[in-house]
Amino acid sequence: MTAPVYLDHAATTPVRPEVVEVMLPFLTERFGNPSGVHHYAREAQRALDRARRDLAEVLGCRPADVVLTSGGTESVNAAVRGISLAQALAGVGRHVVTTAIEHHAVLHTCQYLEKFGFQVTYVPPDPEGLVLPDQVAAAVRQDTVLVSVMLANNEVGTILPVPEIVRAVRSRARALGRRIPVHTDAVQAPGLLPLSVDGLGVDALSLSAHKFGGPKGMGLLYLRKATPFLSQQTGGGQERQRRAGTENVAGAVGMATALRLAEAGRTAAVPRLTALRDRLIQGVLAAVPDARLNGHRRRRLANHASFSFAGVEGDRLIAQLDAAGIAASNGSACSSATWEPSHVLLALGLPLEWALGTVRFTLGPENTDADVDHVLAVLPRLVARLREHGGALPK
Amino acid sequence: MTAPVYLDHAATTPVRPEVVEVMLPFLTERFGNPSGVHHYAREAQRALDRARRDLAEVLGCRPADVVLTSGGTESVNAAVRGISLAQALAGVGRHVVTTAIEHHAVLHTCQYLEKFGFQVTYVPPDPEGLVLPDQVAAAVRQDTVLVSVMLANNEVGTILPVPEIVRAVRSRARALGRRIPVHTDAVQAPGLLPLSVDGLGVDALSLSAHKFGGPKGMGLLYLRKATPFLSQQTGGGQERQRRAGTENVAGAVGMATALRLAEAGRTAAVPRLTALRDRLIQGVLAAVPDARLNGHRRRRLANHASFSFAGVEGDRLIAQLDAAGIAASNGSACSSATWEPSHVLLALGLPLEWALGTVRFTLGPENTDADVDHVLAVLPRLVARLREHGGALPK
Repeated sequence: MTAPVYLDHAATTPVRPEVVEVMLPFLTERFGNPSGVHHYAREAQRALDRARRDLAEVLGCRPADVVLTSGGTESVNAAVRGISLAQALAGVGRHVVTTAIEHHAVLHTCQYLEKFGFQVTYVPPDPEGLVLPDQVAAAVRQDTVLVSVMLANNEVGTILPVPEIVRAVRSRARALGRRIPVHTDAVQAPGLLPLSVDGLGVDALSLSAHKFGGPKGMGLLYLRKATPFLSQQTGGGQERQRRAGTENVAGAVGMATALRLAEAGRTAAVPRLTALRDRLIQGVLAAVPDARLNGHRRRRLANHASFSFAGVEGDRLIAQLDAAGIAASNGSACSSATWEPSHVLLALGLPLEWALGTVRFTLGPENTDADVDHVLAVLPRLVARLREHGGALPK
Repeated sequence: MTAPVYLDHAATTPVRPEVVEVMLPFLTERFGNPSGVHHYAREAQRALDRARRDLAEVLGCRPADVVLTSGGTESVNAAVRGISLAQALAGVGRHVVTTAIEHHAVLHTCQYLEKFGFQVTYVPPDPEGLVLPDQVAAAVRQDTVLVSVMLANNEVGTILPVPEIVRAVRSRARALGRRIPVHTDAVQAPGLLPLSVDGLGVDALSLSAHKFGGPKGMGLLYLRKATPFLSQQTGGGQERQRRAGTENVAGAVGMATALRLAEAGRTAAVPRLTALRDRLIQGVLAAVPDARLNGHRRRRLANHASFSFAGVEGDRLIAQLDAAGIAASNGSACSSATWEPSHVLLALGLPLEWALGTVRFTLGPENTDADVDHVLAVLPRLVARLREHGGALPK
């Protein structure tokens, strides 16, 4: 049996061959620990410096503002905990503003802070997953220490108006005589959206390498100069005291190459993926009755299509798609092993029965028209069959 | 120029070829995110399960007790913060016992906890780097929530009596009507010391893959069942809610292979390395006047030799050794880019001038008698030259 068509790029992506190639020497002969003074250490340090410059160039920031981490979840944890706790220790306050549709990396970290006396405001989205800038700004208080709003939602694909949200927050903060850091979880954005930190206006931004052709176990946190920050991984002085631990040199080199390639290919990829995506969306909605597209019609990631089908159990549909040679997901890879409704879909106001009947398709560079054809040939009859025989929710 | 002889294995090691080989497929065709239900996800999950079983076998624990992390520093941070904060939230107390010669990953994390109202007792070592079990036990109080003692010191190579320390702590805790978790930073131990968690008696143990032929950016934390723990990286439900974030599948598979190989080779490696090490120690002490071996004469890691030379600036000696084709270190890779005396050497009572004249040689599988001969041929005249011309400390 050939491997299924992979339509789950929001969960993870294959490492690009060019990325594997640049990583390999740093696993083998160039294995030095950058924190040293000899030949091997200097060689590793040079590679790390180059990787950091390449990453900074894509973000439009100083290399010194890039903190290498072990992935998107670590970056988000570092941003949310590190900024909030630094300000709490300084007596600024203990209030965080975020949205109800963030990834669990943000939401569960906010809940962690709540254990330590923080208050968190979860701004609700509209039914298409948009969050209004004014509503975020209105949630900001005198004791707010952080605003964290994702750039694009992983489950439904909606692109949030981050630059407008930042402007509204800045204006509200000025009225309070404050400056309030804004973080964005941009994990779903590389290769699909511009990543300029000045264009976005944010003070902190999180990325995960394996979402854009880099290796798992590697990520970055952009931290604008002078942003209050308390390191959440302490030990050696690496990453300018912001993240202790021997640097993953091969991972950093791989992530830098992957991000450069994703950004270089973005203007060509977006229209190509958008066309594939729209054919998939129109095809599914035309062929499957009682189907809906989740998220925003137009302001959505170019590679992202999330559908809900009434009267179908999403996990069974995904299993049957897999058996039919199509790898898709129910939305959030990080919780898809457990059978529970998505907090994002419920926050969008989707009824429980629809939320449980959700399948997400996320396209990548290697997908073709034939892959979309395959889904359109297979999906409608699987949905119909599940609705007839046992597609209903378990009693 | 050929690459220098590598004698800095305590800082990092090359990834073994067998490890690179098992990792590669999980970077390329088997790239799935384990948190999913389709073909690619299941394939990744199976590999992860196998890796976890292999790791658990070496540690003599349940696979469920192995938490995959991004490295030794993360493991130590998770153990020290996670156990201490969980118990503080439960109202047990806010006191930690550790030693004055721990790695900065432990010490700086203890200082982090001090910012949040914790008290920490730093038990001093004897001049050879040993810490007395009774002294550790005597530091335990009614409000102690964690004892953290390293298994072997990274800078001077002394092996600490962890099983005896655990017994003394258990006895003291019983007298207080308590059970107090004990963590050990075992980062320097794999391939050199037994790692059985029951043999050691510990509740938590930290390892870093790149110290034993695995990749950088990968580590593990052993956590005995029912040990109080508050996850320090929150988000998805990975690692049984103890460490959120997409698992580094290639890294886990690589670490498991590296640990199996290190353990399988241990009984052969230890006498071979000990012989090389002892020839190096005897040769250096015989050929260089005003030289001393740091750490314990006998209870030391089989691959570890740390020397101090009066009247020599260690960093300059290391630079000249590098130019002469020998890669060595000043002790702690994580701080060696900064010019400051080692907290370990000062805690051992070494005078400042000696502490600043320190070089560490740590051997590995690929080192031979010829490498030791090379050091013995080069080191004595470099020390002599530095003492004559400008080996003194900068004014």
